[in-house]
Amino acid sequence: MNIQTYMQDLGRQARAASRLMAAASTEAKNTALCTIAAKIRARADELLAANARDLEQARADGLEPAMIDRLTLTAKGIESMAQGLEQIAALPDPIGEISNMKRRPSGIQVGHMRVPLGVIGIIYEARPNVTADAAGLCLKSGNAAILRGGKEALHCNQAIAACVREGLEEAGLPATGVQVVETTDRAAVGELITMPEFVDVIVPRGGKGLIERISRDARVPVIKHLDGNCHVYLDDAADAAKALPIVENSKTQRYGTCNTAESLLVARSRAAELLPAVGAMLAGKGVEMRACAESLAILRSANIAGAKLVEAQESDWSEEYLAPIIAVKIVAGLDEAIEHINRYSSMHTDSIVSENYTRAMRFLREVDSASVMVNASTRFADGFEYGLGAEIGISTDKIHARGPVGLEGLTSQKWIVFGNGEVRK
Amino acid sequence: MNIQTYMQDLGRQARAASRLMAAASTEAKNTALCTIAAKIRARADELLAANARDLEQARADGLEPAMIDRLTLTAKGIESMAQGLEQIAALPDPIGEISNMKRRPSGIQVGHMRVPLGVIGIIYEARPNVTADAAGLCLKSGNAAILRGGKEALHCNQAIAACVREGLEEAGLPATGVQVVETTDRAAVGELITMPEFVDVIVPRGGKGLIERISRDARVPVIKHLDGNCHVYLDDAADAAKALPIVENSKTQRYGTCNTAESLLVARSRAAELLPAVGAMLAGKGVEMRACAESLAILRSANIAGAKLVEAQESDWSEEYLAPIIAVKIVAGLDEAIEHINRYSSMHTDSIVSENYTRAMRFLREVDSASVMVNASTRFADGFEYGLGAEIGISTDKIHARGPVGLEGLTSQKWIVFGNGEVRK
Repeated sequence: MNIQTYMQDLGRQARAASRLMAAASTEAKNTALCTIAAKIRARADELLAANARDLEQARADGLEPAMIDRLTLTAKGIESMAQGLEQIAALPDPIGEISNMKRRPSGIQVGHMRVPLGVIGIIYEARPNVTADAAGLCLKSGNAAILRGGKEALHCNQAIAACVREGLEEAGLPATGVQVVETTDRAAVGELITMPEFVDVIVPRGGKGLIERISRDARVPVIKHLDGNCHVYLDDAADAAKALPIVENSKTQRYGTCNTAESLLVARSRAAELLPAVGAMLAGKGVEMRACAESLAILRSANIAGAKLVEAQESDWSEEYLAPIIAVKIVAGLDEAIEHINRYSSMHTDSIVSENYTRAMRFLREVDSASVMVNASTRFADGFEYGLGAEIGISTDKIHARGPVGLEGLTSQKWIVFGNGEVRK
Repeated sequence: MNIQTYMQDLGRQARAASRLMAAASTEAKNTALCTIAAKIRARADELLAANARDLEQARADGLEPAMIDRLTLTAKGIESMAQGLEQIAALPDPIGEISNMKRRPSGIQVGHMRVPLGVIGIIYEARPNVTADAAGLCLKSGNAAILRGGKEALHCNQAIAACVREGLEEAGLPATGVQVVETTDRAAVGELITMPEFVDVIVPRGGKGLIERISRDARVPVIKHLDGNCHVYLDDAADAAKALPIVENSKTQRYGTCNTAESLLVARSRAAELLPAVGAMLAGKGVEMRACAESLAILRSANIAGAKLVEAQESDWSEEYLAPIIAVKIVAGLDEAIEHINRYSSMHTDSIVSENYTRAMRFLREVDSASVMVNASTRFADGFEYGLGAEIGISTDKIHARGPVGLEGLTSQKWIVFGNGEVRK
């Protein structure tokens, strides 16, 4: 098979299908979503069998345990895929919504209509549930989708894709509204990201290496986040009773997520008071602290049992550990905190703990990240927690979608004009 | 001078200045805008002298008359630059605006804050007024700007840049908030569009060749429009009394603008009735008609005095003439009109003339262009006509800004969270 021809064919079909998806009624889209959910439930055994084939191959190929873990589909995982689709069906349909209409002196009425982006290309790695989630989000937002999952999940993805295709058809929508790339040839990705005539935007989900490669080579816009180096800053006016649980939750609730805090900044005036307690809590959870010289001295003199203390290197300020490790730095105050964050943060999520109104508001305004918080855990940076109802990913770009991306991030707003024969003077 | 080093220095200074511009008060920004306007007025003679030097060089270099025309600055042009800046000062400040705050079940309040994009790179050709306009828009939206004008306007741009720099300083803002590239080396553009660490977005303004080159080579997002192949569709239910003035205004009010109609589609059921009158009006204005075989037959048999009638080629459906020429095609009805537009349009602006509610609403929803209109002239697709107060350009992209781009297009919305010590469960 010629990969270029194959991908161009998928693209052409997606472009054609996107017109029908854009014009589809809310009812047809919701029927499709619920039908797909029902099929996924009904075919749980088939999906598990397909997953077993993928797992067998993955073990034979010597994939690492973390990858095997992400690849593994359980009965519970299948049920939550189905529920996820039903939840998407229950969300309001964003498409066709007219807003901001204003009458202009010329007599025309001008405003916005929300419309799909067109064709979304989604590139992801092991997790088979992304196939159902991404299909559901693209479908509800009136887009056509081309899904390119990892080759390690091929059989399972194909089994899910069959449910999606049949669900679309039974609802009277084009089966090509969601297509799964059926070749494992890596050249397919290269084609997918360089067909601006057929694909409007690429959403890559996976490791930093994958996303950097795609961003560099893509000829279409990419909605992405590279990494999550999130900060908690304990201000001079931090409430100690809030500081401890916020650091604990931000760092230790889950180590592997992008909204986990990787750096702790502490105002100098509070370091001697706050660091021993924070250090004891982190040590109790087995979190290694990579501390600046000044904070290291305070932490050492606190004699915390079992504390893993290491002097921080310059590289620690930029690191996304995704592990029980945290960088710790004492700063002079708000200005240095903001400067440090704007320099080293990945522009994902940063939080200040402070009772001082003016400093809290300055932090909100001046920290240049997708999510900026006052007195809350960085772990809240999430589509469900923000009330989006679903999430295709989190963007650390400033253009188009920023932070958690839900259905709206897969749409754009065009201008519409209602006239009555007006002409320009 | 090493161009790379020079541009990296500009970039570094712009990035540093962008923090101060983002945090600047509305008052400081408005003071700067009004001071720049006053300086431009006070130095009218200097600006005219600088422009005279540029024009002399341009004539010596044999630039074509249209380019000379765009390059020429008049006393009236200087006054409208100054007024433009004062109008931008009078617009509401978009930065820091908090919206959509919602209380979530977790207890956090989450919503949006509007913030600048950061550093905007603007690349443009002859017109010196773009230097003042772009500086004003970037300043008001809290961004730092790097402006790269055409080499043919260098002296005039430098004279305007001096006003901008002094205006910024007198308002207590960094002089590096708006920088003008002072080298005419074309390699400077190549550097400017490949410094994602210093530049957040590029806005190119100029011919299609320039914009295609920049889009292809840029490593940062580009807000652009390539061309304007705008359509007027006369539906089966078109009101003849609206059709004629809308076609006339869309096509003939100005020939060289991107929102000028380049194609006319007519429903078959109305062609014999409407085309002779439309053809007579166009012929009267000296507009050549490149017509499909069917419309050509109708136009020929109407015996319109002085009509320039040519049989259309396939390429005419995609052409942006920017001249007194229009492509004319008869279509079966709405479906064919939408299909034709979505295939050949540049996704800029398209208008339907119809009294039929359902078809008008379908056209609005299904035509995939930045501006879609009912019973109005395509010439309304403009930042001022839409009430944006100012315009940095018109985007035919679907991502981020679509259609006329005002101050908001130079901003993004970050998520903000007000907590009270909440942690994620």
